[in-house]
Amino acid sequence: MSDAVAFALMNVIGLLAFAIVGSLKGAEADLDLFGVAVLGILTALGGGTIRDTLVGQVPLALRTTTDVLVVLLGVALALVLIRRFGDLREHPLVVLPDAVGLAAFAATGASVGYEAGLTPFGIVVLATLTAVGGGSLCDLLLTRVPVVLREDFYATPAVIGGVAFWLGVSVGLPAGIAMIGCAVLVLALRLLALRRGWRLPTV
Amino acid sequence: MSDAVAFALMNVIGLLAFAIVGSLKGAEADLDLFGVAVLGILTALGGGTIRDTLVGQVPLALRTTTDVLVVLLGVALALVLIRRFGDLREHPLVVLPDAVGLAAFAATGASVGYEAGLTPFGIVVLATLTAVGGGSLCDLLLTRVPVVLREDFYATPAVIGGVAFWLGVSVGLPAGIAMIGCAVLVLALRLLALRRGWRLPTV
Amino acid sequence: MSDAVAFALMNVIGLLAFAIVGSLKGAEADLDLFGVAVLGILTALGGGTIRDTLVGQVPLALRTTTDVLVVLLGVALALVLIRRFGDLREHPLVVLPDAVGLAAFAATGASVGYEAGLTPFGIVVLATLTAVGGGSLCDLLLTRVPVVLREDFYATPAVIGGVAFWLGVSVGLPAGIAMIGCAVLVLALRLLALRRGWRLPTV
Repeated sequence: MSDAVAFALMNVIGLLAFAIVGSLKGAEADLDLFGVAVLGILTALGGGTIRDTLVGQVPLALRTTTDVLVVLLGVALALVLIRRFGDLREHPLVVLPDAVGLAAFAATGASVGYEAGLTPFGIVVLATLTAVGGGSLCDLLLTRVPVVLREDFYATPAVIGGVAFWLGVSVGLPAGIAMIGCAVLVLALRLLALRRGWRLPTV
Repeated sequence: MSDAVAFALMNVIGLLAFAIVGSLKGAEADLDLFGVAVLGILTALGGGTIRDTLVGQVPLALRTTTDVLVVLLGVALALVLIRRFGDLREHPLVVLPDAVGLAAFAATGASVGYEAGLTPFGIVVLATLTAVGGGSLCDLLLTRVPVVLREDFYATPAVIGGVAFWLGVSVGLPAGIAMIGCAVLVLALRLLALRRGWRLPTV
Repeated sequence: MSDAVAFALMNVIGLLAFAIVGSLKGAEADLDLFGVAVLGILTALGGGTIRDTLVGQVPLALRTTTDVLVVLLGVALALVLIRRFGDLREHPLVVLPDAVGLAAFAATGASVGYEAGLTPFGIVVLATLTAVGGGSLCDLLLTRVPVVLREDFYATPAVIGGVAFWLGVSVGLPAGIAMIGCAVLVLALRLLALRRGWRLPTV
């Protein structure tokens, strides 16, 4: 699999997953149809917009039509789920796409940072901000303390994934393979953290 | 009217309107003089800053002195209105400039997106973000759920205006004419929505 | 002292100070270890990221390793302070670094705006946004009304400092000297405002 294919795959998975998560959060908050769609769109596009803006590029979502179509598909899927299942707070239908989006976007953030020639720290920071940016923006718009601050091991897997990506490309792996490895690792760590209830110590 | 004149006109109208709206919201929240001015400035400059940053330009407000002077004039006008009228919550003096600013900034966002060569979707997204960005930032700073999520037909007119702008330039209209058409349409839709109490269905 | 040395000095002081402030605010809000670190990092890097993004540069923190190391040192220092002193709300250990960070970042903002060829207003706006950006982001993530809106004479000193920097370079001072002057003035005004309880009139 080429690097470009790996990037496109992770990007689509992340957009779809976060569009669903944002829409479901909007429905939980009793927003109307448009508010639900806005939250879905902003949650899906937020992370990538932060990522691209920080490295000085016009956000991908404004340059390609496919990205927006994927997001709208995600919002539509969420509307079907909402009608079918009702209240989805803490439901696997929210928690699982959220973990998937976190993993996929950490990989795209690391990749974009690497291509832009950032420092290792820069790559890790960009992986983390891309992964948690959309969800944090969604929580902010709903005036909730973002999940990244509330929950242990939400941003931590993205940080570890960013480090893993950097280690991978440092030992000569193609960026595409390093992205897949990063995403799988982030997803595994996030799901394990959820299942085991991992917590970091408070200070 | 040339495209540049249309842009300058819409820009000044939007800046003035949103400076008033932001300042009045700040006064309602019992902020001191400086807080009122900060909210007026950020509400007025927020949308355009998002717009310019997303297409990779240094924000207009940082490059031209007139923009900031217009904003300060708007803040000063708002201070006069506050002393004269007292409580302005839901007052036409807030609601009307807000609709005017929404319309004018949707037009500048569509125009900047078009000039930057964005996709049709990108143009609509930029029109919408420019229109609702400043007000949302204002609401976030006051830790309120942004009006764009609370109210039906707030962002919807901006989306429709962005589509109208794109249709206009697609059939060969000069960008300046398309901007005026976009702004008039957004303003009409927003005022109609307010008067008729249009609501989108909840999901 | 050369301009580059003055910039590096102000940058390190600001990063360190705001990393401490953000971490302490996170600990007050009973966040876990990671949340505390995230808040420290975002508070420290927020102002500079806004500054660099607005003038079209990749944020310094993503390009240099030292910046991130300084921030992590600040977070570590804060963790020691928290264990040692317990509740730090309104404690001089929060208030003093906050004033120092405000002063140092106003100077870096003014300097970057000047180098980027912004208008005098643009320089003042960039000085102010750089100074108050990180703390405002921190407050937003904790869903608090940002200190810049709540407190008199928080952003005011940064505005005055930006004007002073501009006056300095206008009369021919080297940018490095103007930065030091700006920072000293902002710090003095902020500390005086705190001690004397200066308030601006409400409207």
